[in-house]
Amino acid sequence: MKVKQTLKKKTSNPLPSWNDGKAKHSIEAFVQRITKTGSKDFVPAWERIAVFDNDGTLWAEQPFYFQGLFIFDRVRALAPQHPEWKDKQPFKAVLENDMKTLDAAGMPGLVEIIMATHAGMTTEEFERVVKDWLATARHPKFNKPYTDLVYQPMLELLDFLRANDFKTFIVSGGGIEFMRTFSEKVYGVPPDQVVGSTIITKYEVRDGKPVLVREAKMDFIDDNVGKPVGINKFIGRRPIAAFGNSDGDFQMLEWVTGGTGPRFGLLIHHDDAAREFAYDRNSGVGKLDRGLDEAPKRGWTVVSMKKDWSRIFPFEKKETGT
Amino acid sequence: MKVKQTLKKKTSNPLPSWNDGKAKHSIEAFVQRITKTGSKDFVPAWERIAVFDNDGTLWAEQPFYFQGLFIFDRVRALAPQHPEWKDKQPFKAVLENDMKTLDAAGMPGLVEIIMATHAGMTTEEFERVVKDWLATARHPKFNKPYTDLVYQPMLELLDFLRANDFKTFIVSGGGIEFMRTFSEKVYGVPPDQVVGSTIITKYEVRDGKPVLVREAKMDFIDDNVGKPVGINKFIGRRPIAAFGNSDGDFQMLEWVTGGTGPRFGLLIHHDDAAREFAYDRNSGVGKLDRGLDEAPKRGWTVVSMKKDWSRIFPFEKKETGT
Repeated sequence: MKVKQTLKKKTSNPLPSWNDGKAKHSIEAFVQRITKTGSKDFVPAWERIAVFDNDGTLWAEQPFYFQGLFIFDRVRALAPQHPEWKDKQPFKAVLENDMKTLDAAGMPGLVEIIMATHAGMTTEEFERVVKDWLATARHPKFNKPYTDLVYQPMLELLDFLRANDFKTFIVSGGGIEFMRTFSEKVYGVPPDQVVGSTIITKYEVRDGKPVLVREAKMDFIDDNVGKPVGINKFIGRRPIAAFGNSDGDFQMLEWVTGGTGPRFGLLIHHDDAAREFAYDRNSGVGKLDRGLDEAPKRGWTVVSMKKDWSRIFPFEKKETGT
Repeated sequence: MKVKQTLKKKTSNPLPSWNDGKAKHSIEAFVQRITKTGSKDFVPAWERIAVFDNDGTLWAEQPFYFQGLFIFDRVRALAPQHPEWKDKQPFKAVLENDMKTLDAAGMPGLVEIIMATHAGMTTEEFERVVKDWLATARHPKFNKPYTDLVYQPMLELLDFLRANDFKTFIVSGGGIEFMRTFSEKVYGVPPDQVVGSTIITKYEVRDGKPVLVREAKMDFIDDNVGKPVGINKFIGRRPIAAFGNSDGDFQMLEWVTGGTGPRFGLLIHHDDAAREFAYDRNSGVGKLDRGLDEAPKRGWTVVSMKKDWSRIFPFEKKETGT
């Protein structure tokens, strides 16, 4: 295996959008500790695996998971071919923008909509539909493409870890094929380093051309207890650092920080209503309750977006002096 | 994303165990064609994905898949705790070395044995059992550890492709957690670049310690039509080169070479009874029938182990002059 032997040059401030404070210092101290040759906590490059949740950790997730908004747009786009939807829940709720009914339908309702809108096409056709949507849809609050709603401090963190020979993975409840359409361009994370929820696909040869057809059947849900399972299945090695923002990431952080040797767990707390959104214990999307309670005793770092981040999104003006 | 910009130095002969001939030349010509900057067939580094079957392609698979031999040894080791096995097929056949009955039991019989021997333990316990077996078991013909029975020309090919910025993946019918115990050390392929068959695992916290428990339930079989599905699920990008040896690799080669742009497919033909084993159209393990018929018209390279490889295993004396 190729192992980079050269020590990376340290720039004076590799995390310019992070304010000085406990959160930033804990990250820097961890990286310093595991990269110091000869130290008892040294971790060889091939074991430097870091995993990141996506929704609410790398990009925003309000007013609803962005893939959820994509799904609702698909329902609207496909509605003319499905006249029955205007009387049939949960499709009716989507067409009427009835978020209350949709919330009540919960995950089973969402899965029903996903099956009806994400299946019956080839993987290549699905990729095209997602890319078209990402190119044209705009966020209701910021009026920007969704892929602009990524967190500048987290982009810097991904770069900082990679500069220290970490292999960075996304481990998210989102659809794996949805995320792979933009993960490389937006985060520098190649498709094979994206772990997510999957639906069953079937191999077929159509007119001599091999295709993979997406079937209306869930394969794997990469959330909560599914995250350690997904990490084991796709990565096959226990990461040493995990970054999340909700109780859906709890088991991922527990699994990662439960290993031997130096470990790092971090939760992002959305507490900045002015620059982004403020939500935690009582939120449907991105609920953070148990994580807030247990982070201190588990030694997990909690990031206050309000206090720890000088800049949220790349499109914000960079502050002077940072 | 980090892209290596430097052109790799070409050693005079990066494939010393390959005899001059059509097979070797087809590999070299393909790599030259896709790495030549400015050429219309140039493929950027991040799209240089190559996939390798394991059994019969990277290491031997006779007298039976090595993982099968491991499984049979597990049955023998666990038999004292299962007195009922001596009267119960297919376990009885294993204990009596009755390969004819085992062959007749086929894949369902093998899966039954896998479920009874590979499940009910944590992923860490399973890893230990596999590593202990690989350290002590010996191949019946060569009297060597199984991990010595890897093909020297294929190790050189893996290195050659990686030196040309390929990312190399294993895509095999074997158990993903079985292969991951040795893939990095033996092939230089890290665990997250191994795609294989999976069983269901379940996340649990036992006495405050998080574990993943292997359940007696298959999750995914990465063989035949499963290989393109596995590639799409785990890698998320269509590879440009595929290497196999049996009809279980047919769909993988078909999927890979069915894409647009330059593509490469190669099948290894086991035709060297003296130095290894000779088998093809009528073999139970590693049957190669349709592949031999269709390789010419599909433009796939067929390697004769007898004619194209000057050396089979690393432990063989290196021939002079190569």
